[in-house]
Amino acid sequence: MKLLLLSNSRSPDGGYLTHAHEAIAEIAGACKQAVFIPFAGVTVEWDDYLHKVQEVFSILGIDVQSAHCVSNPVALLEQAQIIVVGGGNTFNLLKHCRELGLLPVISQRVLAGVPYIGWSAGANLACPSICTTNDMPIVDPKGFDALGLIPFQLNPHYTNASPNGHQGETRDQRIAEYLAANSSQCVLGLPEGDWLRITDSAVQLNGSWPAQLFEAGKAPQTLTSPATLYLDAMRLKPFVR
Amino acid sequence: MKLLLLSNSRSPDGGYLTHAHEAIAEIAGACKQAVFIPFAGVTVEWDDYLHKVQEVFSILGIDVQSAHCVSNPVALLEQAQIIVVGGGNTFNLLKHCRELGLLPVISQRVLAGVPYIGWSAGANLACPSICTTNDMPIVDPKGFDALGLIPFQLNPHYTNASPNGHQGETRDQRIAEYLAANSSQCVLGLPEGDWLRITDSAVQLNGSWPAQLFEAGKAPQTLTSPATLYLDAMRLKPFVR
Repeated sequence: MKLLLLSNSRSPDGGYLTHAHEAIAEIAGACKQAVFIPFAGVTVEWDDYLHKVQEVFSILGIDVQSAHCVSNPVALLEQAQIIVVGGGNTFNLLKHCRELGLLPVISQRVLAGVPYIGWSAGANLACPSICTTNDMPIVDPKGFDALGLIPFQLNPHYTNASPNGHQGETRDQRIAEYLAANSSQCVLGLPEGDWLRITDSAVQLNGSWPAQLFEAGKAPQTLTSPATLYLDAMRLKPFVR
Repeated sequence: MKLLLLSNSRSPDGGYLTHAHEAIAEIAGACKQAVFIPFAGVTVEWDDYLHKVQEVFSILGIDVQSAHCVSNPVALLEQAQIIVVGGGNTFNLLKHCRELGLLPVISQRVLAGVPYIGWSAGANLACPSICTTNDMPIVDPKGFDALGLIPFQLNPHYTNASPNGHQGETRDQRIAEYLAANSSQCVLGLPEGDWLRITDSAVQLNGSWPAQLFEAGKAPQTLTSPATLYLDAMRLKPFVR
């Protein structure tokens, strides 16, 4: 399995996916045809979203077709050499993927070795569920279960900072609530600018900022980046060997 | 109908519901028996949550029983003189209310004139859906439709401020996404410290900070507080006359 899961799309310098060029080139290898899933986009036209992504991938010599441009996106995904899932609203993404019947074909293709690249909502979609998204539940996806390509949860755009004076929950409090309701899971808080490169045997944490690992009943653990993480025997939990 | 919907539980001075004492006393009137719904609490024990709320209401001479302490919470709510719904996680709140069959009885009682007091998640529950909550979707409530006691959506803890450098969506962007997917609705962003006192004919906005009204295709409108708002003929939209 080959996954590239990014916290977010913007490089710290403000460039769109510029921090991910090398990682995208590496995971793509010799593959030159990608299928894009734009359904997390809500306030952006999917055509515009596609063009933005095509600009980045064309630099790397990769052609991108979008699932929203064809009458049979399942057939398109069956032929995909690379699957790319963009960020936006995770609920909108999951709703459309479920309604179009895309979840099984994405899983099958990725388990068969097709590289999966996702950022923000696209990283959430790779998790067992979308329960650790930061997004507003603007539409009902009719179930929170997602692709389950990785056995743990991600929290993209991870930070525990709050606007000055904010009295709502901090991010850490939200994740603690998730773990109180889902004690067997664990959550990796992935700060902006970081990403995971995942194979069958290990998880490579990359980017300049430490990630934060949350488990029920334990203090959060800071994971320095870069680092190679492994999965425990239950495959639920990444750890540094 | 008598509703008191607060953005949040903490007064600007840090006291628990202290800013709401007068408003609670006013809506309670001669009623001295309240039923509390603690199910938004996730990392707090419901007994502890009840005690915290009892402390506040006892100052006002109001007895509070909790729905989690009885074998038949529907029967308890059928006898309630006041219904109080606390904040926490909106998904957890809606899930438990749905599973326990509390939504119909709460609606019936409030439509029959029983005062409803809710803060944060408890204010979200009074809306047509929980789609404008800020909370993490830690559990699946099996549908986002809520009590629908008011015809518009609230966004509690409203602020458009973000932590420094944050590249995820701002609150205004999240609300714009909601409106893009739900264009017939409108959303009132209620800043911390503010509250609504709602009757059948009008909505009184209280507290020291302006609220923000969002509609699809329009610039957000700042509503100075305090103000009396009215509902349009379609009852979807509050406005200043």
